[in-house]
Parts: sequence; C-alpha cells; structure tokens
Amino acid sequence: MNVTIVGATGEAGLSVINALTTSPNEFKLTAFVRPASIDKPEVEQIKRKGVSVVAINLENNHDELVKALTGQDVVISTLVPFFVGPEIALATASKEAGIKRFIPSAFGPPCPPSGVMLLRELKETIINHVKKIYLPYTVIDVGLWYQVSLPSLPSGKIDYALKFPANVIAEDGSHSTSITDLRDVGRYVARIITDERTLNKYVFAYNEVWAQEQIYSHLEKASGEKIPRNLLPTKDIEVTIADAKVKYDEGDKSLPFIFGLAGPQYLYCEWFRQDNLPECAKYLGYLSTKDLYPDFEPIKYMDYVDEVIQGKGKSIYANR
Amino acid sequence: MNVTIVGATGEAGLSVINALTTSPNEFKLTAFVRPASIDKPEVEQIKRKGVSVVAINLENNHDELVKALTGQDVVISTLVPFFVGPEIALATASKEAGIKRFIPSAFGPPCPPSGVMLLRELKETIINHVKKIYLPYTVIDVGLWYQVSLPSLPSGKIDYALKFPANVIAEDGSHSTSITDLRDVGRYVARIITDERTLNKYVFAYNEVWAQEQIYSHLEKASGEKIPRNLLPTKDIEVTIADAKVKYDEGDKSLPFIFGLAGPQYLYCEWFRQDNLPECAKYLGYLSTKDLYPDFEPIKYMDYVDEVIQGKGKSIYANR
Repeated sequence: MNVTIVGATGEAGLSVINALTTSPNEFKLTAFVRPASIDKPEVEQIKRKGVSVVAINLENNHDELVKALTGQDVVISTLVPFFVGPEIALATASKEAGIKRFIPSAFGPPCPPSGVMLLRELKETIINHVKKIYLPYTVIDVGLWYQVSLPSLPSGKIDYALKFPANVIAEDGSHSTSITDLRDVGRYVARIITDERTLNKYVFAYNEVWAQEQIYSHLEKASGEKIPRNLLPTKDIEVTIADAKVKYDEGDKSLPFIFGLAGPQYLYCEWFRQDNLPECAKYLGYLSTKDLYPDFEPIKYMDYVDEVIQGKGKSIYANR
Repeated sequence: MNVTIVGATGEAGLSVINALTTSPNEFKLTAFVRPASIDKPEVEQIKRKGVSVVAINLENNHDELVKALTGQDVVISTLVPFFVGPEIALATASKEAGIKRFIPSAFGPPCPPSGVMLLRELKETIINHVKKIYLPYTVIDVGLWYQVSLPSLPSGKIDYALKFPANVIAEDGSHSTSITDLRDVGRYVARIITDERTLNKYVFAYNEVWAQEQIYSHLEKASGEKIPRNLLPTKDIEVTIADAKVKYDEGDKSLPFIFGLAGPQYLYCEWFRQDNLPECAKYLGYLSTKDLYPDFEPIKYMDYVDEVIQGKGKSIYANR
C-alpha cells in the first residue's frame, strides 16, 4: 500500500511514520515536505526511517501535486489546520489522482461541527470540501494525548516531559475525558487505513477514560507529592473564551490570535463540556476502536505516568 | 407516542400528518402554529384530522415553548429553512423539555454540507446546533418529489398538477436522480421515528431512481404527446448560479434573493451534480430505507404519471 503523509514532522505525523514503518503490513511511505523545510533535521530523521521525501508546495501547484500523488493509495494529512488552503488543495489533487482514501487532519477530540472550537470549524471546512468532491475519506480523532494530560509537580521533576502542563481543573475535578498515548496514534492509523469498514466514516481511537481528579490523585500517589488544585468554574472559562473570540474576530486571524482562542477552547471542549467522551463520539457518528479492534493493546496510562516520574518520558514538540 | 409537528400546513407537514393520523401505531399529534396563522383554513383542515393545534411563537418565547413541549416524545420540523432562528429556538427548547427525538427540517435531496446549496447550508446550521447541544435527532431526506419531476406537455393538459414544471434537462438527459411521492414522505417518517436504529442518524427515504430522458420518454408514451427537449449544459447553470450568488450576497437575504439562488441550485444538485443518488447518500453517511424497510410499498412513479394524465393528480402548494 502506497501511503503519502503530509505534515510528517509534527507529533501526529511522526507517530504515524513510526507505526507504518514498523508495521507487519507493507506500507511504502512518502512524505511531502515544503521545499523551504527540506534541510531540517526532522526531515533527515524521517528519511533514515526509510521514508521517501518529496519537496513540494501544496498551494498553487495543482498539476505537479496530481502527478506526485498518482499511484498513491492513501493520503494522510497531519497538517495543523490553522489555515485551510493547503489541505483543500491537497484534497482536490487527491481526488484527481484517484486516491482511494484521504485522511484529513483531525487527531484531536470528537467535537460538534460548529460553535465549540475554532480549530474544529477549520477542520470541518476541509472535511466539507472532501465531501463536496466525493473524495473517499476517514476522519480519525484520538481524544486528548497522554502527553498533555498531566499537571506539573511542585518539585518540578516532571517538567522536562510537560510542554503543556494541565494545571487547570474543570469545576470540581469530576469531569472525564478520553485519553490516548501519542505513540498509539500511528498504530491506530495503521489499522484504520487498511480496514474497509472505516471507509467514509469517522473513527474515534482512544485508550482510556479518566476523570481529572483521578489523574491528580494517581499522580500524587505515584510521585509522593501533593499537587495543588486550581479549580476553574465553567462560567470563568466561558468569559476567557468570549474575550479571546472578540480579539480573534477583530484581529488579523494570525497565529497568536488563533492560539489565544484555541487554547481555552480545547480545555472547554475536553474538560468542561466533556465532548471528548465515547458516548458523545457515538452520538456524533463515530465508530469506536474498542468495537473495531478489541485485540488492540494500548499503552496503559499508569505505565505512561510511571515512565514520566522515572525520567523516561519524552516531551512533545521537544525541538520547538 | 406524543408527536409535535411544526410547519404542519406545508406540503411535507401535511404528508406527515396524513400518515401519522392514519397509522396503525398510536400517535398523539400536536401542531404548533403561529398565532397569526391560527385562523387559516389549512389549520382548520388539520384540526379536522384530529390534530391538537397550539398557537405559539417559536422565537423569544423559550419558557412557554419548553412548557408546551414537555411530555412530548418526538418533535418534527417541516419549517422552510429560509431563516434558521425559529428552528434553532425550537431545538433549544426541545433539549430542555427532554424530547427523545428531534427531526430537523430536511426532506430534500442528500447534499454535501457546504458549497452546493444555500438551503442545505441553512439546514446544516440548524443540524450543527442540534449536535452542539446533543439533542437526539434524525435527519430525513427524501430526494426529489414526484410532484416536481414532470415537464409540462405541449397540450397544457397536465399543467393543473405542475406548480413547478421540470422543463430543463441537464446535459443530454442521461443524468439520474432519486424520486419519492410526496404522499409517501409521511409514511416513511412514521416508520423512522419509531425505529431505534435511526436515532442520531441520517436516513435517505426514496422510492425510485430515474434518468431525466427516461422520464420524458415515459411521459411521451403515456400521453401520446411529443415533448421538446430543452438541454442545458452544466457550465450554463453554473453561470446562472454564480450570478444569483452575487445578487444574494449583495442583497438583503430576503426571500426573492433566496429563491433566485435556491431554484437553480436545486436543479444543479439534483440533476447536474447528481448528489441525489443512493450511492452519494451512502457516502454522505445516510442509512437507506431500502435496507431498513424492505417491506415498504411505495407509490410507483408510473402510477403517479398515469394519475396526472388522467386528471387525478394534485398540485402542490395549490392554495398559494
């Protein structure tokens, strides 16, 4: 199976590459990289894993893109969806090249299509384009990554692994969310893209469901440290989001405005509204990997926490 | 089962009322009608069928609406979706009243969520609101009604039954679309709202698939008249739509602008793009009534055509 991945040097992209290059199924992997990024060390790293790297622009480059995609079976986008243009161009060219399955960039929490998260709305814009041109697709969401689920410890000893420490608790800590080890994301993708049952469907891939207070209590027990609780009522985060929304709407839609809004909206979706739960995903039309792949053995959250405490964890976006 | 219908005096609404009031299943029917419309003859007509009529406004009337909906099981909207406010208010109140299933106004062709038809986009705005509040729902689309599928005859003898004669042929007439007798719409709804398999799903209810040239040839044979072919290339309707879109965007979004755009877009979706086909509906995530209800006996298209030729047809929107 010929698989092209775009966004290969991001965290989700690397997880997919690691899984596909070590899978017992035969995947022939190609990564599309912007010409400007071709000399980056991350690109060298994926080449060493046996991935063919193609330097190519996505926008205003339709014919070259169609040619480069011809003969590919699956196209996976792990692009950050801050700007929809490049991925829409990729989808249009994929349709013309006869791609058998397009994986738009999702890899986050299941979430209603509009009114909750700007990033979801941007992703939906791309998904809607995919549907308009009847490009075969699978939307894969994976919940909250283990790697962004832990609060920091007072000693600072796990800070090395926490690029984004989860130091805010929604309400009283009783709210739950679905969590997945980033390293399992690629393993799920390897299953899903070779499974006819998931064609033109949404799939929710997740490992475990934890309440926020459970995570804090477990980390306290495993670390022997007492962690302060920074409780935040729903109305407070709603005010923060409303303020960020005003700034975004009035601003130039550049990255700082997107991050200012996307950050609190992620918390709101995952921990306050609790969209990121299996029953919500089911309502929203997702198939579940628990039903599809009952034999799949995910990395256990408790093992991940042990790794982090033992200094064996790994920060995401370590090079940024 | 307590069922409230909103938009009861429209064509889809009347079909639903006719089916539910004559169904062997027990439905207790209530129709919400605007206070301004309460004395219309159509309202008197549905009262005579045993429907309880409640005069109530949908917008800016949340508490009264919740009270009126409390105890209802199913809410069906057959409102025209030109303005989304009333139906969004209805959905919000339905959630608070604990409605078990909300049927948003669809009852048209399956269609990608955006970029094809303004009316679909307006419907999607309502569906997205339903999803945001996790209101249990079923979207029911029914394809093109038999009642708007026929061209007029040179003799004028079937004009009495054709409010909107289908006098334009897409391309060479080889394109197909799914068609359904308006009188069957309600019968499908009666099945769907009592079926747990359709909860939080999209359902495509259709009777038959016909190519446009087949329809013309059949009508010629059945009537003995020769019908001229008014062929329209795709690029021409795209120009018409682009012009109407400019007028809509620059205009005040009032009904004439909506109709000016919606008319050619319906043709485009149903006959040119051929979104309204079972395989497209399947791609877009719809269940099919052919799979769900193999025992359902729809009115045959040929029988409908015979009725119309024999003077026994009925125009839609006859009173408008």
